Amino acid sequence: MYPDSLKNLIEAFKFLPGIGEKTAERLAFSVLELEDEQVELFSSCLMDVNTKIHKCSHCNTLTDQELCNVCSDSTRDGNLLCVVEDARSVFLFEKLGMFHGRYHVLNGLISPLDGINPEDIGIADLIDRIQEEHYDEIIFAFKPSIEGETTSLYIKRVLDGMNLKITRLASGVPIGADMEYVDSLTLERALNDRKVIE
Amino acid sequence: MYPDSLKNLIEAFKFLPGIGEKTAERLAFSVLELEDEQVELFSSCLMDVNTKIHKCSHCNTLTDQELCNVCSDSTRDGNLLCVVEDARSVFLFEKLGMFHGRYHVLNGLISPLDGINPEDIGIADLIDRIQEEHYDEIIFAFKPSIEGETTSLYIKRVLDGMNLKITRLASGVPIGADMEYVDSLTLERALNDRKVIE
Repeated sequence: MYPDSLKNLIEAFKFLPGIGEKTAERLAFSVLELEDEQVELFSSCLMDVNTKIHKCSHCNTLTDQELCNVCSDSTRDGNLLCVVEDARSVFLFEKLGMFHGRYHVLNGLISPLDGINPEDIGIADLIDRIQEEHYDEIIFAFKPSIEGETTSLYIKRVLDGMNLKITRLASGVPIGADMEYVDSLTLERALNDRKVIE
Repeated sequence: MYPDSLKNLIEAFKFLPGIGEKTAERLAFSVLELEDEQVELFSSCLMDVNTKIHKCSHCNTLTDQELCNVCSDSTRDGNLLCVVEDARSVFLFEKLGMFHGRYHVLNGLISPLDGINPEDIGIADLIDRIQEEHYDEIIFAFKPSIEGETTSLYIKRVLDGMNLKITRLASGVPIGADMEYVDSLTLERALNDRKVIE
């Protein structure tokens, strides 16, 4: 029904997560409205990302260098290691600009139900790194979920006896949320983790 | 913050309508998860669409040939012309598979508030085509809106005296809709256009 090249582009958009038939059609049609230069740029950016971006050899975040900007920055606090579940989290923290320590990116979270075990997410490399480098504190910045908790507990147990402060991000009621829309698990956690007002 | 090629891809995704910063970031990261072959295909599909797809020289729909599949199909009903506001509508009708006449694609709808006048949407070409070819009926398949009505009325007035049956798509309550969620304009139209049950 569609001309071949249009049909192929629709299929290509469907490679992306969350993009179904209707959205892929809408996006493919919108490509036809772009300037030639924009489409050429879009096309070459895709190839560039594919060839130039890879994992930092030290912390696993995404970079176009051998070492990422954080790993190659000697002014970062070498006592503090933030462990995250994916490279996107590193960019979220960097955008925030509040964290000045170092990062280590796991390859996801432990999820036995999905067949993802500790050896699948690169925990051994993390442990090696912690043993070789000197850290005062390891921060787990995983999403609050069964998988996040499981991963935190697993790593904490492996690190036991290494005399490290091990922390996780606070969970609780998000700033600005209406209390009536906060789910019961979050409320329970917020109550258990309540803080003294000083 | 992001490596250059990733940043460029995020910007490229933002060329597409409805894609803001957050979605562009999500999509760019998901490109990194694709197979090399998928990214190469995606990239080349973009270029292909840009170079191969153009307007049918007869009806203005999108095609990779000189004439589109409908215009070059001599079995289509030559007495019936469906006028649509964009090429996407042609594919919607073709997907439906219920219409066997011919199409003419305008370049949008008349919208004086947006500065879009009859001469901007190719009405002269439509009139020329109707005068040259023999049609019994012209169907306006525009979206039900001020712009759609304006465009229908304008073309109808120009065609007056040509002894043509001029129709528009029915408007009314969509199949499956809950009556309480139907807006008042739609309900008014459904009441005015009510049909005798035979």
